Amino acid sequence: MLERLFSPKSIAVIGASRTEGKVGYATMSNLLESGFAGPIIPVNPAGGELFNLPVYTKLADYPDPIDLVVVAVPAEQVPAAAEEAVRKKAGAIIVVAAGFREAGRQGRLIEDELIEICRKGGVRLLGPNCLGVINTAINLNASFSKRIPQAGQLGIFSQSGALCTAMMDIADERELGVSKAVSIGNKADITEVDILEALAHDEETRVIVGYLEDISDGDKFVKAAEKASTRKPVVILKAGITVAGNRAAASHTGVQAGKDTAYGAAFKRAGICRADSFEALFDYATALALQPTPKGDRVLIITNAGGSATMSADAVEKAGMSVPLLTPDLEEQLRQHLPPSAFIDNPVDISAAAEPRHYAAAIDIAVAHPDIDSILIVLAPQYMTEPAATVRAIVAHLDETIPVIASFLGGSDIMPSRKELAAAGLPFYDSPERAVGALKAMHEYGVWKHRPARHVVRFPVNRRRVERIITRRQHTNRLRLGEVKSKDILKAYGFQILPGRVTTSAEEAVEIARFIGFPVALKVISPSIVHKSDLGGVRLNLGSAQEVVDAFDLMMLRINKHAPNAIIGGIYVEKMAEKGLEVIIGMTRDPQFGPMLMFGLGGIFVEVMKDVTFHLAPITEDEAIQMLKSTRSYELLQGKRGVKEVDLHAIAVALQRISQLTTDFPQILDLDINPLIVGEIGNEPVVVDARMTFAALPEEQ
Amino acid sequence: MLERLFSPKSIAVIGASRTEGKVGYATMSNLLESGFAGPIIPVNPAGGELFNLPVYTKLADYPDPIDLVVVAVPAEQVPAAAEEAVRKKAGAIIVVAAGFREAGRQGRLIEDELIEICRKGGVRLLGPNCLGVINTAINLNASFSKRIPQAGQLGIFSQSGALCTAMMDIADERELGVSKAVSIGNKADITEVDILEALAHDEETRVIVGYLEDISDGDKFVKAAEKASTRKPVVILKAGITVAGNRAAASHTGVQAGKDTAYGAAFKRAGICRADSFEALFDYATALALQPTPKGDRVLIITNAGGSATMSADAVEKAGMSVPLLTPDLEEQLRQHLPPSAFIDNPVDISAAAEPRHYAAAIDIAVAHPDIDSILIVLAPQYMTEPAATVRAIVAHLDETIPVIASFLGGSDIMPSRKELAAAGLPFYDSPERAVGALKAMHEYGVWKHRPARHVVRFPVNRRRVERIITRRQHTNRLRLGEVKSKDILKAYGFQILPGRVTTSAEEAVEIARFIGFPVALKVISPSIVHKSDLGGVRLNLGSAQEVVDAFDLMMLRINKHAPNAIIGGIYVEKMAEKGLEVIIGMTRDPQFGPMLMFGLGGIFVEVMKDVTFHLAPITEDEAIQMLKSTRSYELLQGKRGVKEVDLHAIAVALQRISQLTTDFPQILDLDINPLIVGEIGNEPVVVDARMTFAALPEEQ
Repeated sequence: MLERLFSPKSIAVIGASRTEGKVGYATMSNLLESGFAGPIIPVNPAGGELFNLPVYTKLADYPDPIDLVVVAVPAEQVPAAAEEAVRKKAGAIIVVAAGFREAGRQGRLIEDELIEICRKGGVRLLGPNCLGVINTAINLNASFSKRIPQAGQLGIFSQSGALCTAMMDIADERELGVSKAVSIGNKADITEVDILEALAHDEETRVIVGYLEDISDGDKFVKAAEKASTRKPVVILKAGITVAGNRAAASHTGVQAGKDTAYGAAFKRAGICRADSFEALFDYATALALQPTPKGDRVLIITNAGGSATMSADAVEKAGMSVPLLTPDLEEQLRQHLPPSAFIDNPVDISAAAEPRHYAAAIDIAVAHPDIDSILIVLAPQYMTEPAATVRAIVAHLDETIPVIASFLGGSDIMPSRKELAAAGLPFYDSPERAVGALKAMHEYGVWKHRPARHVVRFPVNRRRVERIITRRQHTNRLRLGEVKSKDILKAYGFQILPGRVTTSAEEAVEIARFIGFPVALKVISPSIVHKSDLGGVRLNLGSAQEVVDAFDLMMLRINKHAPNAIIGGIYVEKMAEKGLEVIIGMTRDPQFGPMLMFGLGGIFVEVMKDVTFHLAPITEDEAIQMLKSTRSYELLQGKRGVKEVDLHAIAVALQRISQLTTDFPQILDLDINPLIVGEIGNEPVVVDARMTFAALPEEQ
Repeated sequence: MLERLFSPKSIAVIGASRTEGKVGYATMSNLLESGFAGPIIPVNPAGGELFNLPVYTKLADYPDPIDLVVVAVPAEQVPAAAEEAVRKKAGAIIVVAAGFREAGRQGRLIEDELIEICRKGGVRLLGPNCLGVINTAINLNASFSKRIPQAGQLGIFSQSGALCTAMMDIADERELGVSKAVSIGNKADITEVDILEALAHDEETRVIVGYLEDISDGDKFVKAAEKASTRKPVVILKAGITVAGNRAAASHTGVQAGKDTAYGAAFKRAGICRADSFEALFDYATALALQPTPKGDRVLIITNAGGSATMSADAVEKAGMSVPLLTPDLEEQLRQHLPPSAFIDNPVDISAAAEPRHYAAAIDIAVAHPDIDSILIVLAPQYMTEPAATVRAIVAHLDETIPVIASFLGGSDIMPSRKELAAAGLPFYDSPERAVGALKAMHEYGVWKHRPARHVVRFPVNRRRVERIITRRQHTNRLRLGEVKSKDILKAYGFQILPGRVTTSAEEAVEIARFIGFPVALKVISPSIVHKSDLGGVRLNLGSAQEVVDAFDLMMLRINKHAPNAIIGGIYVEKMAEKGLEVIIGMTRDPQFGPMLMFGLGGIFVEVMKDVTFHLAPITEDEAIQMLKSTRSYELLQGKRGVKEVDLHAIAVALQRISQLTTDFPQILDLDINPLIVGEIGNEPVVVDARMTFAALPEEQ
């Protein structure tokens, strides 16, 4: 994949220049300095010599094949250069220049032309508006980044060229090194999806690290990321998640990033370790590159002082991981091998008397114990502390089964060098909190990797009925469905709907009520009245014929008075729902990631407390249950606080049915069941109100 | 304050030793190496010479006065050494040894003896179980920490000796330096309160930085910290805040730390910048030491790349600060001075063409503009970036009125040294997120410093009535008050209570109901029934005499059947409350910090969503309103979502009345009004149910 981009045998630079400061100079100089072994062909109409190489006036003049063409000319000259590359049957083109889509209309036109040339010519295009590509394995620096990082384990990609450089710097500083680095710029052809696929299969890459602001194709991205995560950890910082961040991103990429909740759901599905900060990106990548994934969340803390013990225990528990009490056998073993001044507990505080051999012994004991999933070593500088010898002792006892990570508190001059630590394979952090952040990311990745097989249930449904309703509505351009029609659709997908009928006379309303049984509710049906309750358009719990007649008449009177021009489709007479817990199930179709399911408890839980969870469709039973569990108000579903336990499985089924409906019908743009009334176990949930919106038919050409 | 501890003219070391590795050796060696100018007197029964100094066999033999005595002998010999110091009329003693309170009963006895000796002798005691004290201004290293840090602006104190060393290391690494450092150990005499007072008045200390696990005297701490914060920023990391952290702290200090909510409320009151991690401690201290406090939360971001612009804007907004749009005049000025490729927006992305002079110009413009409160500069490495020159340009344009902080992304080798940055007074962070964390801490400190004058209102109340009830209950040891008596007390403090009376007959219940007016509620009064609703002991909304009689009889029947042994004080007949919003007001008396007020919306908001806020009493009107505003459900109080706007002022008054009540009567241990029903503006809130607990009288000697 992208073989001729990442591992070209020969490279041409169109726009190679002798003027220092120009990109065409930097690129040539970088290619030559990095020590790339194959031919590097400068091309410039001016001809002559450059860095002791003959300059070709046009690419066609060069007799042998060219794999990669770096185009280092201004935007307006790029299409012509691309044509040259196509004629030469190059495998890939890197366009460095800015001034394309991100610069407005004129730039967008040039970019479209460039894409067309490459597509027709069968040449892959990186950029434009990008830094280029680096492959340390073959000393390739086809970028205008001054330095080529040391060879190593991180496969880096970035939508920002400047951050790509920063990431390579940090990889170097942390002594992890880089396998490949690629700046994807405007992503006119090659996107994060291609890069994920390439790095997933790249043997030199142990961890993929990326910076993204938007995603080109949500569906492809999720699939590619899921495959990549199965092979190796993928850590991504997604920026542009706030209003201000989105504004900033849009201003220099020309793309709106979309909703962060959708990205969150997509990353979770794909097993991506999501970094919340630039530091976290490397904090996580370091641990994931150097250590095995933990089997669970139980952390043994080993330290040499009370203060660091306390602080580290806080950090682990605050991160939602566990600091288990020692089992008696573990306690006994540790006591035998640690000095008498040690506090044998978790954290294990070996005390100021800690010698390197004590750490080694504690690690050996913990690694062999089934109740410990990871080890956090926190060293505080004390009079007798020997940091360097301690590190040697620790790394000599590292193990492939349990991750060990460390935090050494204090200044770097008394601590062993990062180089020594990284070379020894011990991830190292300036604070316990950051070390724990990395442990947590590893743990979550482990949980994802060992997730149960995804089995999406398909329920028997009346798909044709829904098809018919949608077609009819789309053709008459009535795209917003009210309660009655929405319920028709939901019924076809197996939801329980209360018996009811629409009528236009009070007499018939009574007849209907008698037929379905009291008590009933009356609801006005009107496409032009949005908030029907506000206009007195909903009356509940009517227990007799007289109450139905009175309510009907009053409702018509009110509406005639306050909304005389409203189109009234009639009054809906519906059996009252029994009492239960009100939940909301919704779906919005994200432009990137497709149907995104929403769940929350009704009323103020959603509206005020914003206590909702999201998940991409299609969803499994297990994932639906996870959605319920991840609300803060989950307790209420479990039947505490005076509320009876509700049928969680029934809610999960409702979510799966909506998942099936909205996956079957991409025409449904959004959908809300609010509320769905859920009863005790064994009772079907009941749809009390619902609405949905369809997409308009594409306009005819 | 603590003059003879921090700035002694002469020092003796009891237990001075020639054996390397012993504390008595380390202390002597550290004192001599640091270059302290006054006499240093080694004392050891063995006599002889040490480091070319004559060793006194006993302290009394030394003819001149001694200010500070460092006791470097094992715990059991410490009391005798302390006696020597007392006889010498020393000003302060430092006890380094462990083996006191933290080591169990025997150690506690020695510690008590030591405290008694020092108290009687009028000598201040630092420790035991501590590292000692450092004062860089006079080259004093009276500690067993190997190194004395460079002189500088941070006044450090720590309850953990190991972390004290780590903190000095970090202060050095960040080139901030240390004024004083003091390890307070077991805090047998000198506590964080003394240290806060001393450092607050220390002219060399610009920022106080502390690590604490527990606080010795909450009230004194809050007062001392408040005074200190008024003079200079105080940044504290409070550890032991989780279950695991608390367990760890208790195991090595022998002290339970208490509730984190109380610490949170106390720190807030005292203006302490609370650090959530070891790194944050120095992140905040760096900014506070080097830059002025911002006047508001509006941040101008200046950067040189789109990626860093996006990431930084995210960081500011996620922290709850603001990235304001540029005003037209600001935009115009920036456009005039920045290159054409710059994106003139906030963030200001000067683009890859950014030269040092552009940063300087942007800073000058922003500093002079009234709509900008702080400047965040984020530099991403690019081909043309000149980090060192950029830093010089930035620091040449720093200003005393607006804080400027920076984050340079990438490896340290292409970046200017920390030394250069700190010397120039520019706080510097590895990531935008951490820089923003520091900005936020500065902003919050600024808000605290400019908070309105605290005026605690005193309402006219019937204090004597409450006094009488408490006295009677305490003397009969009936310390848990039920609804009726609690309401009596609340009434005396101006709360509106619904009319009602206790009765033992159904007939009288009807009479009472007729007198106060229907509908009424019946509630069983029983000290032995805790959950009266569960036993059918509460009936609401009784609208007629017949309903009252039926409810009364049924209630007695149920209770006789299900709780035949319950002591029934009668049935309380009370007028039904009108509908309104249910809120909960509570108070728990924290053992450290005294009465802590609690507020939350009733029912699930408190019980499930844990949406509550806390504040130390006494509280001002302004602080009470802040309590309401800081709940997540505040929206509901403002009259949205179908709920009418309630009288916020009335709730604030209720909080202030409870503040007054619980400040007036330290005997009240806890109190709950649940619910208080709050109506629209102008309606008095009504206490529907309440309970409280009194302290037992101290047992007679």
